[in-house]
Formats: sequence, structure tokens, C-alpha cells
Amino acid sequence: MTFSLTILGSNSAIPTLSRNPSAHLLNVNERLFLIDCAEGTQLQIRRFHIHFQRIRRIFISHLHGDHYFGLIGLLNSLHLLGRKEEMHLYGPPLLEEILDLQLKASTTTLVYPLIFHPLSFGSYDLVYDDESVTVHSFPLLHSIPTCGFIFREKKAGRKIRKDLPDDVKIPLSEMKNLVQGDDVMDQEGRFHRNEELTTDPPAPRSYAYCSDTAYTESIIPYIQNCDLLYHESTFMQNMAGIAREKMHSTTVEAATLAKKAGVKKLLIGHFSARYDDLQPLLYEATHIFPETFLAEDGAVIRI
Amino acid sequence: MTFSLTILGSNSAIPTLSRNPSAHLLNVNERLFLIDCAEGTQLQIRRFHIHFQRIRRIFISHLHGDHYFGLIGLLNSLHLLGRKEEMHLYGPPLLEEILDLQLKASTTTLVYPLIFHPLSFGSYDLVYDDESVTVHSFPLLHSIPTCGFIFREKKAGRKIRKDLPDDVKIPLSEMKNLVQGDDVMDQEGRFHRNEELTTDPPAPRSYAYCSDTAYTESIIPYIQNCDLLYHESTFMQNMAGIAREKMHSTTVEAATLAKKAGVKKLLIGHFSARYDDLQPLLYEATHIFPETFLAEDGAVIRI
Repeated sequence: MTFSLTILGSNSAIPTLSRNPSAHLLNVNERLFLIDCAEGTQLQIRRFHIHFQRIRRIFISHLHGDHYFGLIGLLNSLHLLGRKEEMHLYGPPLLEEILDLQLKASTTTLVYPLIFHPLSFGSYDLVYDDESVTVHSFPLLHSIPTCGFIFREKKAGRKIRKDLPDDVKIPLSEMKNLVQGDDVMDQEGRFHRNEELTTDPPAPRSYAYCSDTAYTESIIPYIQNCDLLYHESTFMQNMAGIAREKMHSTTVEAATLAKKAGVKKLLIGHFSARYDDLQPLLYEATHIFPETFLAEDGAVIRI
Repeated sequence: MTFSLTILGSNSAIPTLSRNPSAHLLNVNERLFLIDCAEGTQLQIRRFHIHFQRIRRIFISHLHGDHYFGLIGLLNSLHLLGRKEEMHLYGPPLLEEILDLQLKASTTTLVYPLIFHPLSFGSYDLVYDDESVTVHSFPLLHSIPTCGFIFREKKAGRKIRKDLPDDVKIPLSEMKNLVQGDDVMDQEGRFHRNEELTTDPPAPRSYAYCSDTAYTESIIPYIQNCDLLYHESTFMQNMAGIAREKMHSTTVEAATLAKKAGVKKLLIGHFSARYDDLQPLLYEATHIFPETFLAEDGAVIRI
């Protein structure tokens, strides 16, 4: 089952010709989730050959422009291209007011249903749940209300062995029990213990998105042991003072948090435009947490 | 004196990788005027090596997204980069409300003065006037209130001949009279007729921006005889029905209007994304009005 992330933007604050600001696209079993949507995100989606009508849910972490100024343009393009399917949008309550005002200004009635889900920014909340994934939001520590998101795959059923003898035929009515882990009878009435017929399913995977935030250990319970943590690293460690003042994080802070939370991999991004070369940022982070990677525009990470 | 136009976007409706939506940058004597500001305009400004802090005035023709979705991002970037100078913004009254709401959402107080000038959309109005240029707005014919703009250079003073005899010295106090066309005395008390000492100044130039609009001859009085007319040509002539329905224009309509208005050159743009190759559009227009050119992203037109 697919569980992969495409980086659509890795810069902070300002778009540049080499890095667009924040937007991530998560593919969970061919369901596409967009997380943040800076100006230019719709062009990044085209650039990286993603069919944007396939996006079903959009999550906006907060209302700084480098995380949502591209949203109205994307929603408008989907409208002009004749989208029919519902779009679900999760974000701060004021976002709905902003979009409504912009749609009113152009006398636009979207041709598809846009369903807005206001987020609470004070607690750990289940905001989405289907048969294969859950999404929770949780508060980050920033200058305006901001939340992180954690996407957790649900545990899949047990996998039926491919090397079963030809004469073992399991009735369709028993298949559900079998993948749930029960022992079953075959069509000949023979009893089989579950582990003869199945193997363990792959471990469910998880992806946590934390941008923008100052260093805070308060988020560790929400992201603990996740497979991939994206944590902003706007600055190198020599700018820790500025980072604190602007309520952003450094490379060392992101890596320290990843280590304390026991995550498997760390992805750093939301880089200040002052850094052309990102290798020094990677170096600082890997020194503390070796499994660190750079979120670069267009990178695809298979989790 | 510079009077040149840079095309920052030439597509209609939706940004594509080859064409961004509407934005034009007019340089009048090194004063930069931005006209419309689609999503991605700030990146186009970078791409075409324009120093965007030099922009002093922004004109927004109407509130369809492909003409203004990039404005808040540009204003925000100027803020983050520490602009100090005033920015003057001319647009529909509701634009101010949209920007205010977005600034409020991010608790941003711009570090530079943003001065909003609401446009009237029902009449021909002088909206800007300085020593070298005037800007008028005038109503276009579109599905929401939309205006065009005409930029007219003011007549420069008469040019003093470079080949004056060495013994003809004009007192500084007489120079103003001389460039205004008066006859003057030189330092020796000799009388000179103006035409002995000066030549005609270059003819003042003008640029008219008309996007978005259906074909309407009502605008001819405002744009008559202008040096360069930009008129949208969203569609080819075989889509005249769709053009009318959507209140846009075809190549043939733009060229017909250019001919009737007696303009010197016509620039067509705001192309539907369905056209990869623009040569057929140019062909249709030049058939009626030979001095037609394509507005292509990055093109610089010296007027």
C-alpha cells in the first residue's frame, strides 16, 4: 500500500525561484492529502505531475501567508476545470471567512461542494478517520494559533500466504475471519490454524507534520515513535536567538526533538531564504539525529 | 525617457508552467507601475530580474482571481523584506476588505504604509497624476465591475539644441521659459526666437490596458490613437459565442477595436490555456490589424 510524501515547497516566508514555501502532498493508499498550500502550490502540483483533481482533503496548519496564500487559487482552478467531487478543507475558522469574501468578490459559486471543517487549536483532536487512515491535529507553539497533524495508517488485515497448497481452498465466507486472525475451515472441512495460512501484515506507518513551531517537548506524546517526522528547521543553530524570537526552530532543536520522541526518520524544511546551500543545515541535524533528510521541492519520500 | 512594458503573465484563468496569468509592469521614466497581480507574479518579477521594491503603484482591474490572487503575497513579501516606502494601491473597494482580513488573520501590521485608492467603475477618472504621467481608469464590459487603465506620458519640455554656437549663453533664469517654448534673451542681451535654440520634444507616449472585456466600442474615446493598446484576446474567432457568453474577446474583436480606435500597435494576451501555440491567434489578428504582437511572459516592449 502506498504511503508516500511529495514535497511541494520547502522555503519559509517568501517564494524563491529555487524553493517554494510550504506545501506537502501525502499519498495514503492513493488517497491524496494536501498539507498547507503556499502561493504557487498549484504550479508545483503541475510541475511534479500530480493530477490535482485527485486531492480530496486539504489541511491548513495556520494563517501565515506562506502556508495558505495559494489555497484560493487552487480551489478556483479546480472550479474552472469543472471539478465535481467534494473537497474537504480543515483549517482555522477565519479561513472560511477569507475564502467566502474572495468568492463573493468574484461572484463565484463553486461548481463542487467545498466542505469546511474548523480546527480547534488547543487540543489533540481526531479530525479525520476512514478505513485506512486517521488524522489528528495537535497544538504547536507559534506566534498565531497553529497546529500540527499526524497521519496514522490503520493496521491492515493479515496477509494470506501466496504458497498455500492447491488443495487448500478457503470459502469466501471465511476470508474476512481469516484476515482478522481467526482459525478457519477449508472447503473440504479441514481445520487450519491462522498462522498456517497467513503472515503478519506490514506495520502501520505514520507521518507527522510540524510547521511552524518553536521547540516544544509538549508535542512529543503526539508524535512519539512515528515513522517520519517533518519538523521545521528555519534556522541553523547559530541563530537560535532569532528562532526563539520568531517562534521557529533550529536544525539542532528539530533533531533533538526527533531523538527524544524516538521517531524513525526526520525531515527538515521551512528553510530561511538566506540559505542557498542546505548541506550545513543537514550536517548540524545529522550530528544529533543521523536519520535526518532535507525536504527539497519535488522530493518523494516513501515511508 | 524610458516608457517600456514587461509582460509578467499572459494566460487567462489558470496558471500553467509556460504562462502565468495577468500582470504587466510599466516603466515610465524609471517609475514602476504594476498592473494586475495574478498568483505567482512575485516569482515572475524575480524571474525577469526586476527589483520589486521599486514598484510604487499597483493597479488592480477587477477581482477575478487571475488578476489579483498574487497581490497579498507580494505585499507580504515586501513587508518581510523590510520595505519602508509607501505603496499605493488602486482597486475595487472590496479589495481593501480582503487584504485587511488576511492581514488580521496573520496579526500582521505592515512595516510600510499601504495607501488604498478605491476606483470607481462607472466613469472615466483621473486616478494618478505626476510631473511625467497621468493614469485614467475607464469602465470595461465584463461579468463583474472591471476597469481599464490608460497611462499617458506628459508632453516634455522643448529640447535645447546641442549644436548652439559657443557664444550663445542662456541665463539659468531663462531656461524654464526656453523649454516652455518662449523666445529669450542670451547673456549678451541678444534676442533669440525659440526655434533657433530648441527642437520639438518627442511626442508623449501612451499605453492602454484593457483586460478583461467583451468587445465594446464604448472604450474607443478613452484609448483613441494610443501608442500601444493591450486588449485581451482570450479566444480565437471560432469561439466568438463562448467569448460573448463569458464576456471576453476574440483575436478578431481585439484587432477590430484597435483598427477603429486608430492605435499604433496592438498587444494581445490573456490567452485561454487551450492554446499551446499562439501563432494562429496572431495570424487572425494581424489579418485585420497588421501591427499586432503577442504578449508573452517575459517580453519587454519599448513603446
